[in-house]
Amino acid sequence: MGPDIETLIQKISRLPGLGPRSARRIVIHMIRNREVSLEPLLLSMSRVFENVKTCPTCGNIDVFEDVCSICSDKTRRNDVICIVESVADLWAIERTSCFRGQYHVLGGLLSSIEGKGPEILLLDKLLHICKANAVTEIIVALSATVEGQTTAHYIKNFFTSRNIRATSLAHGIPIGGELDYLDDGTLFAAFSDRR
Amino acid sequence: MGPDIETLIQKISRLPGLGPRSARRIVIHMIRNREVSLEPLLLSMSRVFENVKTCPTCGNIDVFEDVCSICSDKTRRNDVICIVESVADLWAIERTSCFRGQYHVLGGLLSSIEGKGPEILLLDKLLHICKANAVTEIIVALSATVEGQTTAHYIKNFFTSRNIRATSLAHGIPIGGELDYLDDGTLFAAFSDRR
Repeated sequence: MGPDIETLIQKISRLPGLGPRSARRIVIHMIRNREVSLEPLLLSMSRVFENVKTCPTCGNIDVFEDVCSICSDKTRRNDVICIVESVADLWAIERTSCFRGQYHVLGGLLSSIEGKGPEILLLDKLLHICKANAVTEIIVALSATVEGQTTAHYIKNFFTSRNIRATSLAHGIPIGGELDYLDDGTLFAAFSDRR
Repeated sequence: MGPDIETLIQKISRLPGLGPRSARRIVIHMIRNREVSLEPLLLSMSRVFENVKTCPTCGNIDVFEDVCSICSDKTRRNDVICIVESVADLWAIERTSCFRGQYHVLGGLLSSIEGKGPEILLLDKLLHICKANAVTEIIVALSATVEGQTTAHYIKNFFTSRNIRATSLAHGIPIGGELDYLDDGTLFAAFSDRR
């Protein structure tokens, strides 16, 4: 195995979820299928590398001119903003097509262990957008982890104290979930939020 | 998410061991870390794409002029040839540094289900090399699966009937393996091959 291949394996093994073993498998697959795998992947990667950027308004990652395709979409409401932790979460919500408003991607979650205070949430910038667009609702769509819920609580307080309605996603039984496999916290939330 | 990113995710999700979810995670990671992840990876991939080829002698994948670095290495013995199923297996043996001879990568394993007969093993080409280099031993290093062992048996017969010594890897307890977790077949092999 030459140094070029060695380097490629090393670089691929540093991608999230991969390690040296899976990287080797991927590299062998790519080399074996140069025309159908390596070459198109290379083209696709260089296009993304040259064109992609982070939207200055919402924080989404996209290929665009001034603002991303969601921010510039005139058919979407701009009086509702959904706050997400990461671009991955934004994409997950977009896949469901259940939300037709704007987004705001946080710079991270509050974490006293990692020393991340409220300044990383960029809420002042968001408040500015809220006032400019007369936003009526902020939907806080954060993970149900300790950090996620702490951050959600902080954000909801921040907006309700400024007379902007802030809601968060419902907790309950996942679709397809079986009752006796649910943890106590979820079951408790599902009971107390029953409709 | 724009069409360029969508295409890249699709292409990455087709790599072995990955799916849409891990591909999305990788793409977001690469875009987030353009300078330290996407750009070097892109460079490394294009170098491999341009330079790598399959060695006409042994079947190894490498960056070389006429024959690969193993075949052209004068310090290696060329009277012993190790037969492996794939380039991944060759690399695995090379990592242990326990073998300093030549290799022969098979085109595949015998499989009556997939209709793969002895012609895919390219044994005539190998026999030609054996005669040219006065090879004294063929080491058959194939997996201990049904197809691997069938193929190994066929290859050993092929060479012993032509007066070339053919050996295969030992079976037994893996290093660090616990006796009571071993399957019966391995334990049986370990007993009958005891030293």
